[in-house]
Amino acid sequence: MTREELFQEIKSKKSFLCVGLDGDLTKIPAHLLELEDPIFEFNKAIIEATSDLAVAYKPNIAFYECLGEKGWVSLRKTLDIIPKNCFTIADAKRGDIGNTSRYYAKTFFEQYQFDSITIAPYMGSDSVKPFLEFEEKWAIVLALTSNEGAKDFQYITEAGKPVFQTVLEKSSSWGSEENMMYVVGATKVEKLKEVRAIVPHHFLLVPGVGVQGGSLEEVAKFGLNEKCGLLVNSSRGIIYADSGLEFKEAARASALKLQSSMAKILEGEGLA
Amino acid sequence: MTREELFQEIKSKKSFLCVGLDGDLTKIPAHLLELEDPIFEFNKAIIEATSDLAVAYKPNIAFYECLGEKGWVSLRKTLDIIPKNCFTIADAKRGDIGNTSRYYAKTFFEQYQFDSITIAPYMGSDSVKPFLEFEEKWAIVLALTSNEGAKDFQYITEAGKPVFQTVLEKSSSWGSEENMMYVVGATKVEKLKEVRAIVPHHFLLVPGVGVQGGSLEEVAKFGLNEKCGLLVNSSRGIIYADSGLEFKEAARASALKLQSSMAKILEGEGLA
Repeated sequence: MTREELFQEIKSKKSFLCVGLDGDLTKIPAHLLELEDPIFEFNKAIIEATSDLAVAYKPNIAFYECLGEKGWVSLRKTLDIIPKNCFTIADAKRGDIGNTSRYYAKTFFEQYQFDSITIAPYMGSDSVKPFLEFEEKWAIVLALTSNEGAKDFQYITEAGKPVFQTVLEKSSSWGSEENMMYVVGATKVEKLKEVRAIVPHHFLLVPGVGVQGGSLEEVAKFGLNEKCGLLVNSSRGIIYADSGLEFKEAARASALKLQSSMAKILEGEGLA
Repeated sequence: MTREELFQEIKSKKSFLCVGLDGDLTKIPAHLLELEDPIFEFNKAIIEATSDLAVAYKPNIAFYECLGEKGWVSLRKTLDIIPKNCFTIADAKRGDIGNTSRYYAKTFFEQYQFDSITIAPYMGSDSVKPFLEFEEKWAIVLALTSNEGAKDFQYITEAGKPVFQTVLEKSSSWGSEENMMYVVGATKVEKLKEVRAIVPHHFLLVPGVGVQGGSLEEVAKFGLNEKCGLLVNSSRGIIYADSGLEFKEAARASALKLQSSMAKILEGEGLA
């Protein structure tokens, strides 16, 4: 999917919502556990309930890997039913030496047909560049994450510039806003201003709104750009809105609440 | 496997060799491609040819993932035939927020029964700590990698201390030399001295000897400690020593050459 196509979807759905498909056998509704592939059935219900409200879906690969081979089957089946107008993100946080990163790229772009994959930047240029060689595919590089441990290394500062800013500066020269995005956590919303000063035109994938405490309005205030430029992710807040028989309706209600707020924001900015 | 058990294996085999099981369908001997599971058959031959010479095996997970579900089957079968006295390393370079890292730990420690997994430290403490909660399992954290891109972010320096040193200092307080190791590339062998000043007792996993140009003697000079403290990895130099019918014999010859050098080094230091 191209940047322009993604923007058109955002305008058409009045939404920049990404739904995190992080199904966990210990948390999904108990009645699904009797089915042959509970994680797939769970995802199918969530996708049916939200695909007119969300522009992107983001399975975190850890939740599939931990089930062994059958987890990858659930993942493949899930990718098959995500509507083609939705952007898909393999939240895999991969990264290795060049030759090896290329195999990770093949895994997610070719084997499983994702549009994009999240990348951990620690190993530098040759760990990221192989992901940029695939047409209409995206590398989403971790810049500033939303977790507690983000402070350990991402803020190490040389010549007034913290690591996460150097990651943005250097890596943005390896590709363009047509094939790279960045992960920037919503829990440090004031940092979005610093991020936008370096990468004004890139899309940002923003976790941490909702359960982790970030505010959508604040994220929009500092993060929006001329093509919206934001994908705001919600996982638990939507998929576990209810853990019983009504989980599908609850997920939709929760997604609708976010999408309605997004519609207002986009209309206010003339982006919808 | 405990640190002491690993040291006993090293003394017994007079070796600190780790063999990288990075089988690639485009590089393994062509006659194997006719078999049902070429990657497993390739690994089986390599393991048979080297298991008295190597103390550890390290499959890089990218090479299995990229084959889809059947790649994970090859991986599982490979783990099943690695002798129990060999240390196993999932070279996966994972890392995510705490709850998610726990699922990656379950994947490799429980689903596939690895002794250890490599971890990318960018996301900090809560991305690493979940891997330390498993008894006799190891987190092998990337400190200074051997690739070209290592220079991009690992040398960013605050108050005279580069990022890779801060990674060593901070993360070593999260666990101990009984459950953590570090990746330190052999291509910057003089840096091993700086690494040893911070983590004198930890094991180091050292890639980059051989094809990537590092010298075994130099690595030993700066890296050895009282329990050997080194696992030196060779992948391509062993597994692709020959690409024809004699690949097994060639792999053994190549491993034997490295092991013989290691035996001399260990005997010289009174460690064998």
